[in-house]
Amino acid sequence: MDSLNPVDSTQFLQQQLHAVIALLEKQELENTLVHKSTSSHHDLEESLVFRQHHVRIQEKLFDLHPADIAFILESLPLDQRQTVWQAIKADHDGQVLLEVSDAVRETLITGMADEELANFASNLDADEIADLAADLPKRAMLKILRSLNSQERSHLNTILSYEDDQVGAFMDFGMIAIRDDLNLEAIIEFIRKLGKLPGHTDKLFVVDQHNIVKGVLPLQRLLTHEPAQQVAEVMVTDFVKFQVDHDTADAARAFERYDLISAPVVDNHGELQGRLCVDSILDFIREKSDDDMLTQAGVGEDEDLFSSVWKSAKNRWGWLMINVATAFASTRIIDVFQDTILQLVALASLMPIVAAMGGNTGNQTSMLIIRSLALGQINAVNVRRLIKKELTLALLNGAFIGIIIGLLSWVLYYNLALSIVIGSAMLINLLVAVLVGLSIPLLRYKFGKDPAVGTSIMLTAITDSMGFFIVLLLARMFLIGR
Amino acid sequence: MDSLNPVDSTQFLQQQLHAVIALLEKQELENTLVHKSTSSHHDLEESLVFRQHHVRIQEKLFDLHPADIAFILESLPLDQRQTVWQAIKADHDGQVLLEVSDAVRETLITGMADEELANFASNLDADEIADLAADLPKRAMLKILRSLNSQERSHLNTILSYEDDQVGAFMDFGMIAIRDDLNLEAIIEFIRKLGKLPGHTDKLFVVDQHNIVKGVLPLQRLLTHEPAQQVAEVMVTDFVKFQVDHDTADAARAFERYDLISAPVVDNHGELQGRLCVDSILDFIREKSDDDMLTQAGVGEDEDLFSSVWKSAKNRWGWLMINVATAFASTRIIDVFQDTILQLVALASLMPIVAAMGGNTGNQTSMLIIRSLALGQINAVNVRRLIKKELTLALLNGAFIGIIIGLLSWVLYYNLALSIVIGSAMLINLLVAVLVGLSIPLLRYKFGKDPAVGTSIMLTAITDSMGFFIVLLLARMFLIGR
Repeated sequence: MDSLNPVDSTQFLQQQLHAVIALLEKQELENTLVHKSTSSHHDLEESLVFRQHHVRIQEKLFDLHPADIAFILESLPLDQRQTVWQAIKADHDGQVLLEVSDAVRETLITGMADEELANFASNLDADEIADLAADLPKRAMLKILRSLNSQERSHLNTILSYEDDQVGAFMDFGMIAIRDDLNLEAIIEFIRKLGKLPGHTDKLFVVDQHNIVKGVLPLQRLLTHEPAQQVAEVMVTDFVKFQVDHDTADAARAFERYDLISAPVVDNHGELQGRLCVDSILDFIREKSDDDMLTQAGVGEDEDLFSSVWKSAKNRWGWLMINVATAFASTRIIDVFQDTILQLVALASLMPIVAAMGGNTGNQTSMLIIRSLALGQINAVNVRRLIKKELTLALLNGAFIGIIIGLLSWVLYYNLALSIVIGSAMLINLLVAVLVGLSIPLLRYKFGKDPAVGTSIMLTAITDSMGFFIVLLLARMFLIGR
Repeated sequence: MDSLNPVDSTQFLQQQLHAVIALLEKQELENTLVHKSTSSHHDLEESLVFRQHHVRIQEKLFDLHPADIAFILESLPLDQRQTVWQAIKADHDGQVLLEVSDAVRETLITGMADEELANFASNLDADEIADLAADLPKRAMLKILRSLNSQERSHLNTILSYEDDQVGAFMDFGMIAIRDDLNLEAIIEFIRKLGKLPGHTDKLFVVDQHNIVKGVLPLQRLLTHEPAQQVAEVMVTDFVKFQVDHDTADAARAFERYDLISAPVVDNHGELQGRLCVDSILDFIREKSDDDMLTQAGVGEDEDLFSSVWKSAKNRWGWLMINVATAFASTRIIDVFQDTILQLVALASLMPIVAAMGGNTGNQTSMLIIRSLALGQINAVNVRRLIKKELTLALLNGAFIGIIIGLLSWVLYYNLALSIVIGSAMLINLLVAVLVGLSIPLLRYKFGKDPAVGTSIMLTAITDSMGFFIVLLLARMFLIGR
C-alpha cells in the first residue's frame, strides 16, 4: 500500500492530484451525457457508469500512502472530495482520516454510517483512535469501544483523560520495556522473535519491577556493544523523560534542544505510562504555528479551504464583530472633537497616520515578547531590563518618526504649529503603544493565559483610540483659536 | 558533559537560569564592594575576585547540555551574557555557538579572537561549521579551512554551495552506506567495529558501485531478520529520498507526511550526497514559523530579546518607514475630500471603521490563501472555485457588517442617508478587500515570490485608501448638498 514517490514528493503529489481532478472532470462530462441520453435503461446505465467511475478512482489511489490520499482529499472542493471518498473509503482504514486536517475530517465523517466508522477504527492503535475521538459520533465511538480488548480500552481512556495540551494526550503505547538484568544477546533474541519494532523505536526503556524507568537502551548501543554485556552496564541513565501532565509545548522544546526521536512518558511516581515520539511533536509544532497564524488573522482553526460559505462565515463573524465593536469604540473619540476637526480639517487626514503607526510599533513589541515568552526566556529578573530597553527604543522611534511625520505635514500644510502637534502626538502614541504592547502579553502570561490570543485586537483598539485622542486633544489645546 | 534533567526540562532550565542570575548579581555586588575598598592591593584583589567569579560560573554550567547553556545565554542581557560567556567559553566547544539563535551568536562572536574561533570549530562536523560560516569573520574561517582534512573541506564547500532554502544546505554527512551483496551478519559486525553510529541513524543507505542509492536498510530490519540474509533481500526499495537542489519546505512536508527520521539526499544522477535528519527539519520548521511571525510584525529575524537599542531600532525602522509611507499615501485621499468632511463631520469618525474592517477581512482571506499555498493545496483547477467561494463570503460578510454599521451610525446620527452610504461603502470595501487579499498572494506565488512577504502591508494600504475613498465619494455623490 505505502508506495512512496521518487525524489520530489511535492511534484509527485501535484501530479497525482491533477490526475484525480482530470478523472473527476471526465466523469462529470460523461454524467452529463448520460443524463442527456433518453434511453429507457437510464437508471441501470447510470449506476453502471457510476460504478466504473468508482473503480477508476480506486485504481488511481490504491497505491498511495494514506498521507498522500489525505493531501488529495484536502485539495478537492467539497463535492469532488465526497465523490473520491465514497469511491475509496472501503479500500482504506482509518489512517486517511487520521492524516487529514480536523476541518476536512468533519466533512468526511458526515454521512458515514456508525458501522463503517467502527470498522475503520479496527486496525488503529489506541492513540490513533484517541485522535479521532472528538470527531466521531457517540454511537460509533461506543461500537469502537466494545470492539477493543481491555488493554486497548484502558490505553484509549488514559489518553482521553488528558487535556489537549498535556503530554499524555500525545503519547503512544508502542514502547518496549526491558529489565536491566538481561544481557544484550537476550534482548536481540527478543526483538528477533518480536519480528517488528514499533515505528520510531530508537531506544528501549529499562524498567524495574515497579515499572519505574531506570534508563534507556538506544538501539545504537545494542548494536555496538558486546552481546554478552548486561543491559545495566550498557544503558544510559542520564536521559530525558516527560511527565504525563506536563505541557506539550515544553516537551516540544526539549525534543528540539536534545534532538530526541522518542522518550519515555512517566506518571508522578516515575512509572512508565507511554512514549512520546518526534512525529507527534512535528505535527504538534506545525499545527500550533498554523493555528497561531490563522487565529491572529481571525480565521478559526477548523476552517479548510473549501469549507462551505456558511460555515466560513460563522467562523469569521465572531472576530469581525469584535473588530466592529473596537473600531466603533475608538472612533467615538473623534465625535467628541468634531468642532476641532471643523476648525482644522487637515487633522482628519493626519490622525489616522498617528493611530496606524501606534498599532504597528506596538505590534512589533508584542510579537517579540510573545515569542520570547513562548521560548521561556522572560523571567522576573530580566523583565525590568526588557521594559527599559523597549521604552528607550520607543522614545528613539517616536522621535525619529515624529520628526518625519512633522516634516511631511509641514510640506503639505505649511503650518509649523500643526507639524509640532502631529510630531509630538506621534511620539506620545508610540510610547503608549509600546507600553500596551509590553503589558498585554506580560499580564496575560502572568495570569496564566495564552499571551498571543487577542493581543493584536486589544492593542489596535487602544492605539487607535489613543492616536485619535492625543492628536485631537493637542490640537484643541495648542492650535484651535490661534 | 551532557547531563540531562529529570522530567521537567523547562522547570530545570528556569532553575539553572535563576541560579546563574543570582550568582551574577552577587558578583556585581562584590565588585562594587571591591571598588569601594581603598586597599593598595586593589588591582590584584580585583583580578583575584574576578577569577573566583569565573570559576563559580564555570562550575555551575560545566555539566549542562550545550543547548541548555545556549538557552541561558539567550535569556541574559548583553553585559551578563558576556560575563558568562567569557567564563565558560574555554570549557565548551562550538556546540554552544551552534545552538544559540543567529542574533545571539553575533553578540558572542564579537570580541572573540580568530584563534579562539578556529579552535572552537576543531571538533565540529562540516555541516555544523557550515551553519556557523555566515557569522564567522573571514580570517577565522580561513584558519578553520586550513585545519580541515580534504574530505571535511569538500563537505563544507558542498554545503556552502547551496542556497539557504535548498535541501543541500541542511544535509549532514553522518550516513552509513553499504553494498547490497553483504549479509546482515557482516553489517552487524561492521557496526560493532565502528563502535558508534552517527546520531539519528535509523537506517543505512544501500548504494551500488556508482554510489547510486538502491535502497535503505532500517536498523529495525537489521535486528528482526536472520543474520544470514543478504542486504538485497531485506532492504526497502520503496523509500523517500531528496534531491540536493530541492526546496527544504517541501522536504519538511515529506518528513511530516511519511514520519521520517532520516532520508538519503542525492544529486541529479541519483548519487548519494548526504543525509537529511528530522532534527534539522524540526529546527527548520521552528525557525521558519518564528521568522514568519516576526517578519509579519515588521521585526527583523535576527533581533534577539536583548539586542542593543540601536540595533533594534535599525531593525524596525525599515518596516516602520514603509508603514509611514503607505499610511501617508492612503490618507492623501482624505485631503481631496476636505470640503465633504467639512459639510458632514460625522464622516471623519465613520470612515476609519470602513477602512479598518476592510483590512481585517482582507487579512482573513489572504492568511487562508497563504497557508493553503504553503501546503500546496491550491492549483490551477481549484483556484476558480476558491475565488468564487471567497467572493460569495465577502458578499455575505459585507451585507451583514454593512447592515450592522448602518444601524449603529443611524443610532448615533439619526441620518438614514448617511447610514445607507456607510453600509454600502462597507459592502464595497469588503469586496475590494477580499479581491486584494486573494490577488496579492496568488500573484506573488505565480511569479515565484514568497506569498507571505509584504502582503499585509500592501493589503492594508489598499483597503485603507479604498475605505476612505469609497466613503467620501459616496458621501459627495449622495449626501452633500441635500
